[in-house]
Amino acid sequence: MNSFGRIFKVAIFGESHGESVGVNIDGIPAGLPLTVEDFLTDIERRKGGNQRGTTPRKEDDLPIFKSGLFNNKTTGAPLTIIFENKNTRSGDYEKLRDFPRPSHADFVAHQKFGGFEDFRGGGHFSGRLTVCLVAVGVIAKKLLQHAHGTKVAASILEIGGEKDLEKGLQKAIDAKDSIGGIVECRVAGLPAGLGEPFFDSAESLISHAAFSIPAVRGIEFGTGFAAARMFGVEHNDAIIDTNGTTRTNHAGGIVGGITNGNELVYRIAIKPTASTPKDQDTLNWNTGDVETFSVKGRHDLCIALRVPVVLEAVTAMVLADLMMLEQRVKRLI
Amino acid sequence: MNSFGRIFKVAIFGESHGESVGVNIDGIPAGLPLTVEDFLTDIERRKGGNQRGTTPRKEDDLPIFKSGLFNNKTTGAPLTIIFENKNTRSGDYEKLRDFPRPSHADFVAHQKFGGFEDFRGGGHFSGRLTVCLVAVGVIAKKLLQHAHGTKVAASILEIGGEKDLEKGLQKAIDAKDSIGGIVECRVAGLPAGLGEPFFDSAESLISHAAFSIPAVRGIEFGTGFAAARMFGVEHNDAIIDTNGTTRTNHAGGIVGGITNGNELVYRIAIKPTASTPKDQDTLNWNTGDVETFSVKGRHDLCIALRVPVVLEAVTAMVLADLMMLEQRVKRLI
Amino acid sequence: MNSFGRIFKVAIFGESHGESVGVNIDGIPAGLPLTVEDFLTDIERRKGGNQRGTTPRKEDDLPIFKSGLFNNKTTGAPLTIIFENKNTRSGDYEKLRDFPRPSHADFVAHQKFGGFEDFRGGGHFSGRLTVCLVAVGVIAKKLLQHAHGTKVAASILEIGGEKDLEKGLQKAIDAKDSIGGIVECRVAGLPAGLGEPFFDSAESLISHAAFSIPAVRGIEFGTGFAAARMFGVEHNDAIIDTNGTTRTNHAGGIVGGITNGNELVYRIAIKPTASTPKDQDTLNWNTGDVETFSVKGRHDLCIALRVPVVLEAVTAMVLADLMMLEQRVKRLI
Amino acid sequence: MNSFGRIFKVAIFGESHGESVGVNIDGIPAGLPLTVEDFLTDIERRKGGNQRGTTPRKEDDLPIFKSGLFNNKTTGAPLTIIFENKNTRSGDYEKLRDFPRPSHADFVAHQKFGGFEDFRGGGHFSGRLTVCLVAVGVIAKKLLQHAHGTKVAASILEIGGEKDLEKGLQKAIDAKDSIGGIVECRVAGLPAGLGEPFFDSAESLISHAAFSIPAVRGIEFGTGFAAARMFGVEHNDAIIDTNGTTRTNHAGGIVGGITNGNELVYRIAIKPTASTPKDQDTLNWNTGDVETFSVKGRHDLCIALRVPVVLEAVTAMVLADLMMLEQRVKRLI
Repeated sequence: MNSFGRIFKVAIFGESHGESVGVNIDGIPAGLPLTVEDFLTDIERRKGGNQRGTTPRKEDDLPIFKSGLFNNKTTGAPLTIIFENKNTRSGDYEKLRDFPRPSHADFVAHQKFGGFEDFRGGGHFSGRLTVCLVAVGVIAKKLLQHAHGTKVAASILEIGGEKDLEKGLQKAIDAKDSIGGIVECRVAGLPAGLGEPFFDSAESLISHAAFSIPAVRGIEFGTGFAAARMFGVEHNDAIIDTNGTTRTNHAGGIVGGITNGNELVYRIAIKPTASTPKDQDTLNWNTGDVETFSVKGRHDLCIALRVPVVLEAVTAMVLADLMMLEQRVKRLI
Repeated sequence: MNSFGRIFKVAIFGESHGESVGVNIDGIPAGLPLTVEDFLTDIERRKGGNQRGTTPRKEDDLPIFKSGLFNNKTTGAPLTIIFENKNTRSGDYEKLRDFPRPSHADFVAHQKFGGFEDFRGGGHFSGRLTVCLVAVGVIAKKLLQHAHGTKVAASILEIGGEKDLEKGLQKAIDAKDSIGGIVECRVAGLPAGLGEPFFDSAESLISHAAFSIPAVRGIEFGTGFAAARMFGVEHNDAIIDTNGTTRTNHAGGIVGGITNGNELVYRIAIKPTASTPKDQDTLNWNTGDVETFSVKGRHDLCIALRVPVVLEAVTAMVLADLMMLEQRVKRLI
Repeated sequence: MNSFGRIFKVAIFGESHGESVGVNIDGIPAGLPLTVEDFLTDIERRKGGNQRGTTPRKEDDLPIFKSGLFNNKTTGAPLTIIFENKNTRSGDYEKLRDFPRPSHADFVAHQKFGGFEDFRGGGHFSGRLTVCLVAVGVIAKKLLQHAHGTKVAASILEIGGEKDLEKGLQKAIDAKDSIGGIVECRVAGLPAGLGEPFFDSAESLISHAAFSIPAVRGIEFGTGFAAARMFGVEHNDAIIDTNGTTRTNHAGGIVGGITNGNELVYRIAIKPTASTPKDQDTLNWNTGDVETFSVKGRHDLCIALRVPVVLEAVTAMVLADLMMLEQRVKRLI
Repeated sequence: MNSFGRIFKVAIFGESHGESVGVNIDGIPAGLPLTVEDFLTDIERRKGGNQRGTTPRKEDDLPIFKSGLFNNKTTGAPLTIIFENKNTRSGDYEKLRDFPRPSHADFVAHQKFGGFEDFRGGGHFSGRLTVCLVAVGVIAKKLLQHAHGTKVAASILEIGGEKDLEKGLQKAIDAKDSIGGIVECRVAGLPAGLGEPFFDSAESLISHAAFSIPAVRGIEFGTGFAAARMFGVEHNDAIIDTNGTTRTNHAGGIVGGITNGNELVYRIAIKPTASTPKDQDTLNWNTGDVETFSVKGRHDLCIALRVPVVLEAVTAMVLADLMMLEQRVKRLI
């Protein structure tokens, strides 16, 4: 299903080459100030075309509020935002209809939806829909900031294995190929006690949301995979005060599925953009044969560059929902 | 919340040192044959005491059916299973109440539940509850097998960085410390088309479930983190027939959030058991000072050894739910 | 929350005097043919202005598809429909801001949303949003018709206690007051087995949906309240064949919370339109005194006249969801 | 599905002639004092055998806590309660297997679950499970009382159309038949602002829960069906102070789907017990013919007598959930 959240409920819709994409958010408290200006920075961060390695396709991407806003404040009713698709060139894609693009959703969409899917530019599977997630993030980050001064910040850690990002990108440019990367997210000022034991652990919910970002292939919290090679006494974080501050933070801010008030730290692995400039083999749906083809159109060499703001968004979305859930605990008793 | 699933709905309950732990499953189709014997192998696989590096605590762990079963078949009504806690020694734990154990849930549970939590042996946070997950897995695997011949199998890949597991364990024994490991899960015979774009991607749901297993610190699908260092043409999987078979399987069986009919492959990182035999620093809740203490009681040197059957269980749980959801698509149209 | 359904998931949004109202539907199977024409009849049935006793406010109310449709067929992705608000006159309402209208949501909205609510014309509480429900109904009825030939039909039973509807309306016109009515819904061709024991009984879900229609004050299935005055042998429906056909249908097609394959029959009570032309007492928010005021603007004398098509819609919505849920049961076993 | 609630989540399980019935509740705040004694009064109120017109079947019905309780206080973890079935006589029912009892779930259960259902005494459809609802109610009423001093009270309004209940019962005894009744629920001290516009209106949720009680055939809020025969100026409740107190309470405490702080009032219609002592016609599953048969076993002449405590329970369950949901609104802003 295309929705997420228990109290702060988010649903996204739209297709890459339809007339628009959008998001419906239920559960925003009434009275949050919100204007188009609040969205500009994050929408700009998400856009391609501003740096080497990202697609030249650009949209104005101004949020159009359809409901839930009155006198520049949220009303408590569902908030709907639309982003128009102004800059589509379906022609580029239609000729590829004979070839399901490798590592794209073309083939599985066909299997799942029986050929009725909107295949143009990936349709509903397109990374275009991440602009909706970014809009959610703007609102969720405002709520977190307002409630606890919580701050969510994600950044690129490496491109193509290089911490010097220019160097990583140059590898891709030299190879005339796309390339992957790693993005880290940190959350400061998060209250302890968010998350539930077992099924709704904080890691469960964050990873659930993070894997809804296209191209994510892995996630690790704190020391992550390195923890599998550590001894217990190395990995454990000594608690050193009555706030629960720990001397080290190998746990990345989550213990037993619950935030512990220390900084939340996690990383995700982004695969190389599926649309590489290189020739590739794939099935020809018409002939049934494997043929070599090449993807045309505008694409990012390194999609990881555009991910940080999206990762912040889904992280804030999860945390806003958990924060609202947690408020209940202490009120009745 | 302690529940998971949309149609195949699972809720677990109980505490390590309460009288029992249990699970309630709603949504099992009527008519599935089920006996105590079906559970024995997997419950045995989960138990400690059978191999070096696992705790000597053992329970009979025979499932007691409370509802939903009639003449050894499921009835379509909610199925409830209880496992009695026979072999508890709370005394071991009560003296630790002054010290929140590092990397255990003691501190966060106190923060979240205000001191009302059952702290004995970790209470509801205890790994003891994974026996309930294993029971869910037995049922879910039967359903998957029945529906499509789907098979779920997990195994240890490495212990303490060693692919030779005996060698990894010996490192821990020599160091008198606990140690982490990596577990891999593979699913064969899975139909294409499971999962949804964005929020309910197959990776989202599987990772959600996997992180509900205590001690999991990371997850990666297919090539996972290595994908972040690959070029596009290396990583993309060429589609080579009309079933969607791919020449390679870097994607690990999921593209665009949807299973593609190839083998599902993913790995999780397990941290070293938090209860290490070594001395550790932690807060003394009474004095407010940091003190050195050591954990007594029975513990696993390497909890990863007991994880494979639990990972199979939560994987099968997710896939059974997705399979039931997917059936709807083609029936009306 | 403004959403409903487990598989066929519906969320509505918008305000009476905002720029538009709309609906997002997730879970529609791919391949359902859908055009603007499919909506015209039901949208027309809902409109006021066509008969005595309904408001002269009219909108074109043509559905604008924002997502989920491609080549006039559903794609399996979320479908979003917008209805523009073209014909609003906020001035009429703004001067009432000092007076919370009796039996309207003005006062509770203020209590719930702290004054941030869009109060114009009832804002998000407005009956205007029922056009979104009607749109859902068009799709759900198509699905039901396609799956089982199921037909949903609602009609007015009485107005102001009169079965002769003209007579009932004339009472209101003579009294220069608004008036209530009773609407009945019948569903033919419904398969047996929909609904669940206890919490998700068919009555539970239908009544849940029916009470989301503004102005509904009661619901009864089959003989309903009259059953409270009957003996068992009078009320029980003898089963007379192996399909479960019953000799009588006092149950209204639901037994034990499950549809039994006989005609589904239920009735709802609609209160008189809250906006009566008569003078009324209410609080003056500014002065804190009770004052007499009169509602201006365009209103229905008898809102019940517009309810049948909305009742069909929410009924079809519930049944479509239950039908998709039920498909799972027999497939695995 | 056999679960209800968004934050205060309830799932029930068990069968009439299984070994026990039970309930799992997730979302209870930690620290609520709870002992067996808290349950005795309500469990006694639900029992038959104490008054004319109810079944002589009695169970001790002492709640057995399986989880979520520690030192007589809730822990914040899921609470599970079991009630043993000690006093079952399946023999009475097994001979009826050939005859689906009219107005019982026997036939629909067979259609839905394909013959795998536990048919003894109605299995999972049995009114026996209402003891689980009563247990939920004890906890929910404690929470409501603690939070706002809210009090929930239900009582019989009429039996067989008689307000003198003895007279109504005597009608049934004289006719040697079962008989229906009407139950009213009132909630005092309820805060304003609970419920949501449209799908989660307070009426929607309360009716959803009320129709999960077996034998309920109708529900009406405030003036209910009588409102359909009223003029607007008669029905509207004048608001007379800044707390939202109304001069009359035709609305029954809910306007626009939201509680308005006035007394919540609603009524439900209960059909005559399906198991009447009279001979009835029904299908013989073996022969395919319609035959006359008579129900043996212990049954209530008037099941309505046992409903008030169950109605209180499900009402309190809904209101506890809404109260926890509502807390979020004002905290962030």
